[in-house]
Amino acid sequence: MQLLNGKALAGTIRNEIREEVGQLISKGQRPPKLVAVLVGSDGPSQTYVGAKEKDCTEVGFDSEVLHLSEDISEAELLNTVEQLNEDAGVDGFIVQLPLPSHMNDQRILEAIRADKDVDGFHPENVGKMALGLQGFVPATPAGIVELLKRHQIDTEGKLCVVIGRSSIVGMPMALLMGKNAQPGNCTVVQTHSRTKDLKGICAQADILIAALGRPRFVGEEMVKEGAVVIDVGISRIEDPARKSGFRLVGDVDFEAVAQKCSYITPVPGGVGPMTRTALLQNTLQAYYRHQEK
Amino acid sequence: MQLLNGKALAGTIRNEIREEVGQLISKGQRPPKLVAVLVGSDGPSQTYVGAKEKDCTEVGFDSEVLHLSEDISEAELLNTVEQLNEDAGVDGFIVQLPLPSHMNDQRILEAIRADKDVDGFHPENVGKMALGLQGFVPATPAGIVELLKRHQIDTEGKLCVVIGRSSIVGMPMALLMGKNAQPGNCTVVQTHSRTKDLKGICAQADILIAALGRPRFVGEEMVKEGAVVIDVGISRIEDPARKSGFRLVGDVDFEAVAQKCSYITPVPGGVGPMTRTALLQNTLQAYYRHQEK
Repeated sequence: MQLLNGKALAGTIRNEIREEVGQLISKGQRPPKLVAVLVGSDGPSQTYVGAKEKDCTEVGFDSEVLHLSEDISEAELLNTVEQLNEDAGVDGFIVQLPLPSHMNDQRILEAIRADKDVDGFHPENVGKMALGLQGFVPATPAGIVELLKRHQIDTEGKLCVVIGRSSIVGMPMALLMGKNAQPGNCTVVQTHSRTKDLKGICAQADILIAALGRPRFVGEEMVKEGAVVIDVGISRIEDPARKSGFRLVGDVDFEAVAQKCSYITPVPGGVGPMTRTALLQNTLQAYYRHQEK
Repeated sequence: MQLLNGKALAGTIRNEIREEVGQLISKGQRPPKLVAVLVGSDGPSQTYVGAKEKDCTEVGFDSEVLHLSEDISEAELLNTVEQLNEDAGVDGFIVQLPLPSHMNDQRILEAIRADKDVDGFHPENVGKMALGLQGFVPATPAGIVELLKRHQIDTEGKLCVVIGRSSIVGMPMALLMGKNAQPGNCTVVQTHSRTKDLKGICAQADILIAALGRPRFVGEEMVKEGAVVIDVGISRIEDPARKSGFRLVGDVDFEAVAQKCSYITPVPGGVGPMTRTALLQNTLQAYYRHQEK
């Protein structure tokens, strides 16, 4: 079994990006710029946005966090989005979800100009992904594809089972693994809560991608000998042995499954760091596309 | 075995639409309007556009075909698209493909305003379909979903195998059959030219959708007893017994498979008429959405 060390690979990719940005600057060009819009003071959202800002700093991107009050109206937020759409100095921006309940998340996401939507949540970008056109792919699926690519894992003709059909992971993952590309060209099985005999289906997978959000759901009996296992889940479970009282686990029972598979992502340190890095890669792409115009 | 008679159902739906349009007109409202843009004089394209015009007339829609010369520039065509985008009297329009080789099909399709793109080919509509948002679904997959729905075929939890991953049939079909809806909620297997053991996979399907474009490819040995079989293909094969010298067949070996399955679409008279009718349904939806604004 080989560990798909997302943390190490993400570090390598961030180094590559930092070098690239250094060269841009040495040629007298401005660095890429990512803006995060944070509405209200949701704890996890502040943590995520803080991490994104730190990542930008690490690779030499300009970044900015717009902290907006929980009380602002949807119209005011739309106005902010419009300003960011028009600001030529901003290559990409994200509006951190969830938004306060008096706002319509979807309306806000659709107001973001597709060529600055580095989260890849705008329907136009989702459609471009489905059609194999150049757009932005959501960070988690993009990170997983990069992980497979850099490890030169052969996917063509393999049976890939995706557990979960969320808009930001399961559904795009199935599209990407099935398209005519490398990584890609898998025969893809998209499973979900209504799937019958999920265990039997998973046990046939050459590549198993677990994105259902249930701690240690995938046991040893669901994994074929020699399969590639990608674990997207991340949950806290109690662990009295730890000082913190908890530990992080994925959707896969790592200890049991690791014995059986050829490759596996650890949690933490697998998909998570690749996701963070994919946002930087999307921002860099947005930068180049804006330069071309 | 029960025949999924698309021709008969399409007739029923067109009657429903005609009645609805009659009521609109009796209330003093204008009928829906579909415009088809035809560039050049490609034979099959003229036939398709002619059929669409005829369908519109049958249900009481206004319709118009803009015949443009093969020699016009891409800029001129984009100008026509822009005029149709702005014309409040046009609910939906299509640009018949293929376009002459000096034009970029994708650029033209993306210029069509998404709320008038009744073909459902614009990335924004493809993305909305993937995300389960209201948009326009391409006519063939939309027609198949309608066919399953009107025959009250239970799809939830069924294994649906889709052969083919084209942008206009296979890929959207897989998305629609897998989403949380009825019809929908299938466990979907998306297969294609790189799939290994295609026969074995198809033989497990509760619902088999053949959209690969190879005459009579799906034989009896690829179909499970009692499966629902949807045949999207339509090819001419030589048939000296016919006066015309040819006959139309699908991707399924109908005579052999019909013995074994629970439901099957004939070719012709199955998916084809439903596809034509789906375009009318999309146009009617476009009309109502424009009225709401």
